[in-house]
Amino acid sequence: MLIVQKYGGTSVANIERIQNVARRAVETAGKGHSVLVVVSAMAGETDKLINLAHQINENPSTREMDLLLSSGERITCALTAMAVEKFGKKAIALTGRQLGIYTDSVHTRAHIEYITGERAKKALKDGYIVVVAGFQGITKETEEVTTLGRGGSDLSAVAIAYALRADLCEIYTDVDGVYTADPNIVKKARKIKKITYEEMLELASLGAKVLQTRSVEVAAKFNVPLMVKSSFNYNEGTLITTEDKDMEKVVVSAIAHDKNQSKITVKGALNRPGIAALIFKSIAAKNIIVDMIGQNIAKGDERADISFTIPRSETKETLKIIRDLKKEIGYTDIDVNENIGKVSIVGVGMRTHSGVAAKMFETLSEHGINIMMINTSEISVSCIIDLRHLEMAVRVLHDAFGLENELNAQLS
Amino acid sequence: MLIVQKYGGTSVANIERIQNVARRAVETAGKGHSVLVVVSAMAGETDKLINLAHQINENPSTREMDLLLSSGERITCALTAMAVEKFGKKAIALTGRQLGIYTDSVHTRAHIEYITGERAKKALKDGYIVVVAGFQGITKETEEVTTLGRGGSDLSAVAIAYALRADLCEIYTDVDGVYTADPNIVKKARKIKKITYEEMLELASLGAKVLQTRSVEVAAKFNVPLMVKSSFNYNEGTLITTEDKDMEKVVVSAIAHDKNQSKITVKGALNRPGIAALIFKSIAAKNIIVDMIGQNIAKGDERADISFTIPRSETKETLKIIRDLKKEIGYTDIDVNENIGKVSIVGVGMRTHSGVAAKMFETLSEHGINIMMINTSEISVSCIIDLRHLEMAVRVLHDAFGLENELNAQLS
Repeated sequence: MLIVQKYGGTSVANIERIQNVARRAVETAGKGHSVLVVVSAMAGETDKLINLAHQINENPSTREMDLLLSSGERITCALTAMAVEKFGKKAIALTGRQLGIYTDSVHTRAHIEYITGERAKKALKDGYIVVVAGFQGITKETEEVTTLGRGGSDLSAVAIAYALRADLCEIYTDVDGVYTADPNIVKKARKIKKITYEEMLELASLGAKVLQTRSVEVAAKFNVPLMVKSSFNYNEGTLITTEDKDMEKVVVSAIAHDKNQSKITVKGALNRPGIAALIFKSIAAKNIIVDMIGQNIAKGDERADISFTIPRSETKETLKIIRDLKKEIGYTDIDVNENIGKVSIVGVGMRTHSGVAAKMFETLSEHGINIMMINTSEISVSCIIDLRHLEMAVRVLHDAFGLENELNAQLS
Repeated sequence: MLIVQKYGGTSVANIERIQNVARRAVETAGKGHSVLVVVSAMAGETDKLINLAHQINENPSTREMDLLLSSGERITCALTAMAVEKFGKKAIALTGRQLGIYTDSVHTRAHIEYITGERAKKALKDGYIVVVAGFQGITKETEEVTTLGRGGSDLSAVAIAYALRADLCEIYTDVDGVYTADPNIVKKARKIKKITYEEMLELASLGAKVLQTRSVEVAAKFNVPLMVKSSFNYNEGTLITTEDKDMEKVVVSAIAHDKNQSKITVKGALNRPGIAALIFKSIAAKNIIVDMIGQNIAKGDERADISFTIPRSETKETLKIIRDLKKEIGYTDIDVNENIGKVSIVGVGMRTHSGVAAKMFETLSEHGINIMMINTSEISVSCIIDLRHLEMAVRVLHDAFGLENELNAQLS
């Protein structure tokens, strides 16, 4: 098998951990596999460099920023290769350029266009462990250094795994897999053995922080099997793959939550075509991401209440945008609630089972939890509730859907 | 004029100093010059990286070492370009690869083969200040990252100045020029306005640490005018150039000294052809550099004393080599003196003046300083003396040759 292993910043944070990464790569090779390792910068290094840059120029050129930031991964990939060699196995460190990771020229958040991977292929064939600097690539025409944005090393790993037709892409992180809920909140939370790309994406977008969303999207698109594991133990991880028969039996796979939103309600806005569009276009123009939207109007109403949620850190900025539009919106009042939380249930099984949302609402209601807003997708239901009820909501839903049991009859 | 400015590690050691470098580059550009800046890694960074590598692998692959070490200069060149832009001037940061610095493939001490410089030429023409990562290049065939060895950024600057036909190459360091002697020892030491490449090379090889020897050699070979200046003040520096009329009037230009040698005497070695060769070949094989050699034998003597000096840090290692050769050398005793110093006078004027060496010996003798070994070149005379007399020797020679006066009649 050809296995791509990606190690994040905490997994290469110091000498001992880099040695640990090298040891694991050598162990994998010892089982007869070809191994390509993708490494991030040592934890804190990228932030340190960003901080240096901003002390010098609060608005630095993105081209120079990429040149700056790409050095962190170069350092870890060189050190990791040295560590592998110390364990007696041949190793070669390759930068994004040397591996042939070609991107567009959108500096600091470039997209990978294609990967040649010639040197890696040859080195793997010759029995080397290949260590690649994650997060970086180069442009085709001018060979400018680019970076792929936060969490870009996950993306490097998935794209390389696809380009080299790897059998598995292992993402090593500081948790040992994807859980049915945050184990800090739900004691009985269980590690999921297998989950679909779709569910993982939904979980990630609903607040779970295990994997970078874009990398899961790319893995799904190209059908790259992903395994999330911890670099600090040898526990079995979570496999992220396409839907299979086992999974169909499960209706709800996991509970996600998000504590970092605010809810804003624009009261008594004029009920005219274009008013909602105006609000959300103006907010989007400031790069603020609106999550849920709710509007309650009956036909013929002159005025409407429009509610939506945004990242809490953007509350002030968003309020300013709305106030600046007072004339156009013609609202009577603005209501702000910074004490909300979002709880979500996720599972591909919902497609073929009815009554899942009802069960969720019922469960919350039984525990006296009031639902302020609801949002649904094909494989998830999310509720905005009072922040002080959030952890309880996660626990009671975990119980209600029987997530502590591997194959549960969740709707019995 | 096209001016290349090279700033060493202490000149870019922190944010404030990087801003200072940017300010100076912008000031130079403000006078109507084109400016290309070459930067080293922030002081201490390269040592930090080497230390990390050696903690992981005491014998790391030199290829990976170069990938590792080249990141320090990338960081400073990106930050310096950002700082220049902050001062309102367009800037572009270029790595060794992006400037087109092609080297041989001798990792960690590569030689520059040629420089294309296309991007730099275009950017300079378009009014940019170009900031280049020193110390690094790439190989032609496989585009491997290489580094040029300690002090390699000086070499980058000189080679780039030649390749782009710059009018001047300024080397900024923490001293503001080349002095007639170390100002810490001789209060009256005077900064030299102009000195020849040859004298500078001689001074560097005799212990002065202002410039890296290879970079002066290259500057001499291609006739690149070098100016040594301080980045911490606006004092006039020292121009290093070809010999001109003014210089001929001066016999001795400067006094150099070296405190870091040991003298070893192999007593009663067999006086046979090949014995000296055996000793020095064996020492060279361990990469220990022998400086002075003295041998006193009369024709027909059966035994000879062979003295030589080596870096003090290599004393133990050298003694081991000699002892291992006891049978072949057949010596009776080894004498080690770790308390020696070397004092040297340097000046191109010596070529056309006689009596200079005699005056040096006389001066030392007048002050009760015993000379243990003597070495001469066309433009220098060096004496090994007792370490405790070294500073006094520098002072009395500085006086004797009247170096505090600009145009002195030194042999009057």
